[in-house]
Amino acid sequence: MDKRDNLSVVIHKKEDLRVEQSALPSEPGSYEVQLASNTVGICGSDVHFWKDGCIDKWVIESPLVTGHESSATVIKVGSHVKNLKVGDRVSVEPGVGCMACQVCKDGFYNLCPDVLFFGVPPTGGSLRRYYNHSSAFCHKLPDNMSHGEGALMEPLAVAVYACKRAGITEGSGQRVMVTGAGPVGLLSALAAKAMGAQDVCILDINESRLKFAQQMGINKTILIDTKLDTESLANEVIAILGDSPDITLECSGAESSLNLAIYVNKDGGNVIMVGINPRKVSVSLSSAACREVNLLGIKRYRHSFPLAIYLVSSGKIDVKPLITHKYRIEEALEAFHTASSPTSGAIKVQIECFEQS
Amino acid sequence: MDKRDNLSVVIHKKEDLRVEQSALPSEPGSYEVQLASNTVGICGSDVHFWKDGCIDKWVIESPLVTGHESSATVIKVGSHVKNLKVGDRVSVEPGVGCMACQVCKDGFYNLCPDVLFFGVPPTGGSLRRYYNHSSAFCHKLPDNMSHGEGALMEPLAVAVYACKRAGITEGSGQRVMVTGAGPVGLLSALAAKAMGAQDVCILDINESRLKFAQQMGINKTILIDTKLDTESLANEVIAILGDSPDITLECSGAESSLNLAIYVNKDGGNVIMVGINPRKVSVSLSSAACREVNLLGIKRYRHSFPLAIYLVSSGKIDVKPLITHKYRIEEALEAFHTASSPTSGAIKVQIECFEQS
Amino acid sequence: MDKRDNLSVVIHKKEDLRVEQSALPSEPGSYEVQLASNTVGICGSDVHFWKDGCIDKWVIESPLVTGHESSATVIKVGSHVKNLKVGDRVSVEPGVGCMACQVCKDGFYNLCPDVLFFGVPPTGGSLRRYYNHSSAFCHKLPDNMSHGEGALMEPLAVAVYACKRAGITEGSGQRVMVTGAGPVGLLSALAAKAMGAQDVCILDINESRLKFAQQMGINKTILIDTKLDTESLANEVIAILGDSPDITLECSGAESSLNLAIYVNKDGGNVIMVGINPRKVSVSLSSAACREVNLLGIKRYRHSFPLAIYLVSSGKIDVKPLITHKYRIEEALEAFHTASSPTSGAIKVQIECFEQS
Amino acid sequence: MDKRDNLSVVIHKKEDLRVEQSALPSEPGSYEVQLASNTVGICGSDVHFWKDGCIDKWVIESPLVTGHESSATVIKVGSHVKNLKVGDRVSVEPGVGCMACQVCKDGFYNLCPDVLFFGVPPTGGSLRRYYNHSSAFCHKLPDNMSHGEGALMEPLAVAVYACKRAGITEGSGQRVMVTGAGPVGLLSALAAKAMGAQDVCILDINESRLKFAQQMGINKTILIDTKLDTESLANEVIAILGDSPDITLECSGAESSLNLAIYVNKDGGNVIMVGINPRKVSVSLSSAACREVNLLGIKRYRHSFPLAIYLVSSGKIDVKPLITHKYRIEEALEAFHTASSPTSGAIKVQIECFEQS
Repeated sequence: MDKRDNLSVVIHKKEDLRVEQSALPSEPGSYEVQLASNTVGICGSDVHFWKDGCIDKWVIESPLVTGHESSATVIKVGSHVKNLKVGDRVSVEPGVGCMACQVCKDGFYNLCPDVLFFGVPPTGGSLRRYYNHSSAFCHKLPDNMSHGEGALMEPLAVAVYACKRAGITEGSGQRVMVTGAGPVGLLSALAAKAMGAQDVCILDINESRLKFAQQMGINKTILIDTKLDTESLANEVIAILGDSPDITLECSGAESSLNLAIYVNKDGGNVIMVGINPRKVSVSLSSAACREVNLLGIKRYRHSFPLAIYLVSSGKIDVKPLITHKYRIEEALEAFHTASSPTSGAIKVQIECFEQS
Repeated sequence: MDKRDNLSVVIHKKEDLRVEQSALPSEPGSYEVQLASNTVGICGSDVHFWKDGCIDKWVIESPLVTGHESSATVIKVGSHVKNLKVGDRVSVEPGVGCMACQVCKDGFYNLCPDVLFFGVPPTGGSLRRYYNHSSAFCHKLPDNMSHGEGALMEPLAVAVYACKRAGITEGSGQRVMVTGAGPVGLLSALAAKAMGAQDVCILDINESRLKFAQQMGINKTILIDTKLDTESLANEVIAILGDSPDITLECSGAESSLNLAIYVNKDGGNVIMVGINPRKVSVSLSSAACREVNLLGIKRYRHSFPLAIYLVSSGKIDVKPLITHKYRIEEALEAFHTASSPTSGAIKVQIECFEQS
Repeated sequence: MDKRDNLSVVIHKKEDLRVEQSALPSEPGSYEVQLASNTVGICGSDVHFWKDGCIDKWVIESPLVTGHESSATVIKVGSHVKNLKVGDRVSVEPGVGCMACQVCKDGFYNLCPDVLFFGVPPTGGSLRRYYNHSSAFCHKLPDNMSHGEGALMEPLAVAVYACKRAGITEGSGQRVMVTGAGPVGLLSALAAKAMGAQDVCILDINESRLKFAQQMGINKTILIDTKLDTESLANEVIAILGDSPDITLECSGAESSLNLAIYVNKDGGNVIMVGINPRKVSVSLSSAACREVNLLGIKRYRHSFPLAIYLVSSGKIDVKPLITHKYRIEEALEAFHTASSPTSGAIKVQIECFEQS
Repeated sequence: MDKRDNLSVVIHKKEDLRVEQSALPSEPGSYEVQLASNTVGICGSDVHFWKDGCIDKWVIESPLVTGHESSATVIKVGSHVKNLKVGDRVSVEPGVGCMACQVCKDGFYNLCPDVLFFGVPPTGGSLRRYYNHSSAFCHKLPDNMSHGEGALMEPLAVAVYACKRAGITEGSGQRVMVTGAGPVGLLSALAAKAMGAQDVCILDINESRLKFAQQMGINKTILIDTKLDTESLANEVIAILGDSPDITLECSGAESSLNLAIYVNKDGGNVIMVGINPRKVSVSLSSAACREVNLLGIKRYRHSFPLAIYLVSSGKIDVKPLITHKYRIEEALEAFHTASSPTSGAIKVQIECFEQS
């Protein structure tokens, strides 16, 4: 009988998060690996599920393990697994397509109607000590990357995928505007530079975020004066970049930023809608349409973890400064409080599932 | 001395349209042809320039020849012209890029910052008897197509380009929703079917337009009940198509249609914004973003006349029923009145620049 | 206990083909269906395995069920199957990727290093009465298609995939040369026309094959006079097509045809190498390279069954005339003799696995 | 009257190269600039025209200015030129499409049937003091690049374009094999690394070339032992790269290298045929075809100068060590002798058209 301890962080309902035992995983399937969890970062969506018990139509109706920004170590491999072996350290891609429908066959597994995603009901998350996972969705970490960095590959994959959708490539001379300097905006700006943008400027209404961006190497920042109209702000962007941006990575979800993006982006260029706004926004869609400014969204990511890992492993992006807080799994509730506090100064809070040696 | 008569239709200012002589063209340049105009259709934008003296930032400040939906016959060829000879009948593509900037070198000539377009100030239009044009932008008509059909290739090129941007291809099993059954919506629906859509449904608030669509072979129509909410209307669309549309060609510019498109279109699919709405619209952009529903516009067209001509010449699209009125150039003012009258029953009004033999 | 009869066609070794019982399938897996086989066509490769006991490095070392051109009826469905139900008639795609490696995740399942393909050792084929198969690789047949046509979707998928790789699209005005008028060449010519080629000509050294091509609607044929040099033959092709071909579908594998393709194809166009030649060929690769004539191969097909089915179901291609012989499964040996006889007049020989009602 | 001296290097016929005056350029056309030539590199093709009086079907029938690897300074601008001003230093793209045919409209100007290329009869080259050129084909040099580097952008554009055709991108983890370590092979290896290849190995039969490659930073080199068979050599490549190459840049034109490329390259990958072999080669095309190993050529380049300039300007590639010899225009004959001498140790010989201040 398996006597291992599977300490887990479980959301029971709105504002009811507990650290408790959950069932140990069965033997891994033929294409699965069994993982010993190492580090799990807390994402804004985890906080939402804890605070509200739901996000949009996804409602926590029975206790659910949370967490999806994960690194782990392989402890068992299924019979058909060829890409991994016991002892490998991996970054865990949390959204798994059915791999049997036409969408998956075409390679768009993130759009699979039956996709399972860690911590989104009814699928349990990775903030527990042991679980099984599809080997195709576990990405080996190079020796020069830590588990903490490995757990950051999930938000970086969002940024990388946004840049891929935008068509950012080395040497294309692209100017990129990033609106919103939160963690995802920041990672998007870093990814844009690392993937070849000639120049990146980032905008926010919060000066301390822009300072942090500058410390991370994003030199061109614009503090948004909310009294400025779109045209004036656009002129600032053009002045700082030397020309209109070829690409906008919109990471705020703000209506004003969307209108700025549509107004200032170059004809025929891509505006990637990374930020989410639960409400309707009032925008000049025809202005975009007439100039072939494409408005493209992203559903998480597909095929983006390997590039995220490469960008960190090769030294092109340093994600370590984003990790501001570390907790033990027993302290998970405190960790969630820190992650959700506007005054904690937290950028990324991570939880370690075992005592680190 | 050149004694030819160059009768032309000239907008002098708001509500001042005159049929009068304009200067004869000089000798065609080395890559140009000289054309004897045959048929010119009246477009909504021509009517706008006549009624308002401007469209957006384009203002008629000095008398301007109007017209851009044109067929013609080649009467002279420049020294380097290889694709055409005297006597060839052509459909005339009215927007010419500079062909010297990076945008043009890349093949995106419709987005050239220096593009010249017939009848948009300060570039004169084609509603005159003689003019020169770049030979690369004159497309030879097959023998089985009339000049009247040739002059309809311009609006059909818009529809074809929308379908190209949407990625409509033969045998892909795509379901297509077209919102708005005016001339462009109708041509878009016809182009979608001819280019391989499995199924097309068209929506409008106007029953007579839908009837005309059915006569043209677009069997699935939905009369929009403006009291219905988006979800109910979406269910109607799904019922008539058998599933959510893979692609939406939004040809109305209406806010409600844009929201319907975002709501009902399949994940990862394209919504092409063909219709223009001069105002801001209130839309759920995040709903589109989260499902990778792409919002793409079109700036007129590029590389689309040959396919438009093929679709008509091969019998896949019959555009002749759209031509409801024909006038002589001397009757241009009456033609413009007909084109702008809501009660004339006009779909496409065309003007013949010479007495037809 | 399952008492069903699973009569099968088994190759034991070189020239030893037997009709005998094989094991009944176990319960289908969660994403699998269980199929009652209906019709199975005999392919040249099946004949090779029978005659030689091997093809290249694939050697029959223990008795192996043959066959891979199959239609069937669904008789059981696994717990997760959503695209099919009991009673559905399907065309069976015989090559299944592991769907767990990066190649499969990217959508290139035909290139999966662990792909399993019916009748290629050590994977058993479909020429038996019952077997299980991945539901994602079973394609539902429309009511207007017979099982015999369904079993022809496999070779048609090869042709469709060749045309996809070539970039053949509706209305692009492409001229296509097909070299070799055997079953695959013929299907490739038909697919090229159905998928939008403006004009197709087919070449062969065998006059009766060209006659059959003409009966199938490929009007432009050239009988290859082997005394002609490449340049003269190229001039014939240009004369019959009106210009150089934009695309070549090389279906013979002959060295002379490859050189003709490189010589006559348009700059920047694609030559698809469909035909196989086990030996080295002497060709002017630099002539292709300098003109960006791309030499592309195909490994069977991916994502091509749905389009193959559509082209037949919609009436764009009629494959029925290719079926020249039908046998009962008990007569399999005779069927193989007919398929391999140069004088039988056979184009496609099919075997029915059950008494047809 | 224009009294400027237009000293030029003119090939009169086979082995007859003279330094003499040629006509001064007329005023630049509206989209042209007038250039004062600075540095011109000697290419193998220039040497061929000098030694043989022809290359393939291009024969020097009347005296022709040679040279096409050029940098220059803008001294006049045509009326419509917007991208350049007097005093700008530029790298000159020597092949200009007609920009009026469908091929050019599509963006494939290097494949234009009427392309004009410096120094290929009947088009004069750039090895003279003054000439006019299309402004769209003059690429401004950043301040940190010398004219000598500017003149090397032409061969680097070949390498960049080969890598573009191959699909080399940052972070894709691609392993690249380069066969042939002459100037183009070397630049191709450098471009592959700079454009994001994970690993590059270069092969040659000449040890000194490999040493030079290592000095340039291409650490993985294989000295080809011509006694080895393809399989053994392939195993060496796999050993040094850790896996089969995803991409091959074949820069030797050698039959054995082409067979190696087909044998060892990964399924579904691209082999770019950069090297030229005037003869037929005996190759296993079916081996490539069955594994979807694509054989792609390049006709010079298109859209590749900006990226070449960026790669040098940003410090990703250092081309200066390739410039082994510099001559004054008056010494052109000696320069050509050096460039063609197998014992001169020349990699790139450049000629300066004016006394350098």
